[in-house]
Amino acid sequence: MTQRITTIQEMKTILRTFKQAQKQVGLVPTMGALHDGHLTMVNASLKDNDITVVSVFVNPLQFGPNEDFDAYPRDIDSDQAKLEPLGVDYIFYPSVEEMYPDPLAISLKVNRMADVLEGAKRPGHFDGVVTVVNKLFNIIRPDFAYFGKKDAQQLAIIEKMVADFNHPVSIIGVDTIRESDGLAKSSRNVYLTEKERQEAVHLYQSLITAKARYDAGERNSAVLMNTINTHLTENISGEVEDIAVYSYPELVEQPQITGQIFISLAVKFSKARLIDNIIIKGDSYDSNNDER
Amino acid sequence: MTQRITTIQEMKTILRTFKQAQKQVGLVPTMGALHDGHLTMVNASLKDNDITVVSVFVNPLQFGPNEDFDAYPRDIDSDQAKLEPLGVDYIFYPSVEEMYPDPLAISLKVNRMADVLEGAKRPGHFDGVVTVVNKLFNIIRPDFAYFGKKDAQQLAIIEKMVADFNHPVSIIGVDTIRESDGLAKSSRNVYLTEKERQEAVHLYQSLITAKARYDAGERNSAVLMNTINTHLTENISGEVEDIAVYSYPELVEQPQITGQIFISLAVKFSKARLIDNIIIKGDSYDSNNDER
Repeated sequence: MTQRITTIQEMKTILRTFKQAQKQVGLVPTMGALHDGHLTMVNASLKDNDITVVSVFVNPLQFGPNEDFDAYPRDIDSDQAKLEPLGVDYIFYPSVEEMYPDPLAISLKVNRMADVLEGAKRPGHFDGVVTVVNKLFNIIRPDFAYFGKKDAQQLAIIEKMVADFNHPVSIIGVDTIRESDGLAKSSRNVYLTEKERQEAVHLYQSLITAKARYDAGERNSAVLMNTINTHLTENISGEVEDIAVYSYPELVEQPQITGQIFISLAVKFSKARLIDNIIIKGDSYDSNNDER
Repeated sequence: MTQRITTIQEMKTILRTFKQAQKQVGLVPTMGALHDGHLTMVNASLKDNDITVVSVFVNPLQFGPNEDFDAYPRDIDSDQAKLEPLGVDYIFYPSVEEMYPDPLAISLKVNRMADVLEGAKRPGHFDGVVTVVNKLFNIIRPDFAYFGKKDAQQLAIIEKMVADFNHPVSIIGVDTIRESDGLAKSSRNVYLTEKERQEAVHLYQSLITAKARYDAGERNSAVLMNTINTHLTENISGEVEDIAVYSYPELVEQPQITGQIFISLAVKFSKARLIDNIIIKGDSYDSNNDER
């Protein structure tokens, strides 16, 4: 039986009891609109922990003024129906008012790591992400928290926040879950037209193509990015917004590839902006297990 | 037997055991150079909790470039000698390297509440304070944490941080401890010349004088501030840097007094800058117990 908890106080009280009983707690922070990518993280938490909390909160702070905060898909009953059969213990589902009752007096600001890639396109986005995740960590006090590798920059920033703040939590990065044709699962895929949905397979295919060149020995990032750009422009109607090769998890641009990197891209379709990435290990490269 | 712990990992490991045994933990964050003001907080923690941790860390982030970070008094053995007889369980005494191993990627910034009073004179000071206290809260995970009312602005900001971040800790504000002549105890009093030390009694006396006028019905802040300024300029050689009447804990300037306020002052002597304040309840004023 999955319980839906809407107040911070009740959530804290429930979890205090479990902590005292030395139960291990896992947290999967989400904005709802749950898909198989989320459910994979939920199953990882259920496997690892005694108690699993899935938070469902569309966090206004991480949306820009021209982004899709109002339009973002919300259906808590449908979300709960997906979590019940898995055996999730608690859904933490606070209102915006509950999470932000007063104007904040202490702001979190992500420095260098937010000035690149998605952060550069979405000013303030990662400030909003760390603000809410920091709060969730203090409310839930999880032993483990699960984040998708699809949002690789977010994962790297959360890991750095945990180090900077000394949060007593272990962060688990969960592999990107894909449709059968390779499209990364995303709550925003529902915005795609039918034609765009067919084209969207090429996001991942372009990454695979670049990886094949990497495997063949190519270490010049410009060449790999050019490969991706050619593949995308030939196959999709959307606008290629970004193709990049950065070190991971440091998030520093890598013109020439040496250590672990991730290749990321962002494509703007008519109503959806989609991102995808592939993480490639460097020196310790293993052709059978090439994702971190 | 008081144990001195220098690493975050060891401190976390020790406290995890106590948490599992459902022991209540109190934290008294200090920068060392302990005096009776600190020891009063320590005794409060010892009385309230099963385990008391006193942190001793001179936090470079809360000192400005022209402030006294290098000169700040440090004597951990003397500090420990004061804490041993009280029965303190742990001194957490990390190095700067231990607390800040890498450049921080996520900064804490105190907004409006740091733009006034001490914060206005010391840009970045309260950013540094909340940065280290946030870390200490995550490392120690105290049930109660103790801060002096002498640093009233700091206390208000810490309480707001706890609310903003949902830290599961209760903040206890401890009354200012004074020398027999009324001078607020401070680690920086050692910087005073003998003559300045004698004059310094007038900091508190000027506040008392203002409070007497408040008790007599005066509610105009300018009048009270003028009373203090006259008293100070007639009696001390130091420079009066600031006299202010602000609401507490909101920290908004109050030209006319209605609710709870605090009257604060800052005086710059030759080598020491001293602050003092008095908190005055508003409507619920009680002449026998007028400090919060």
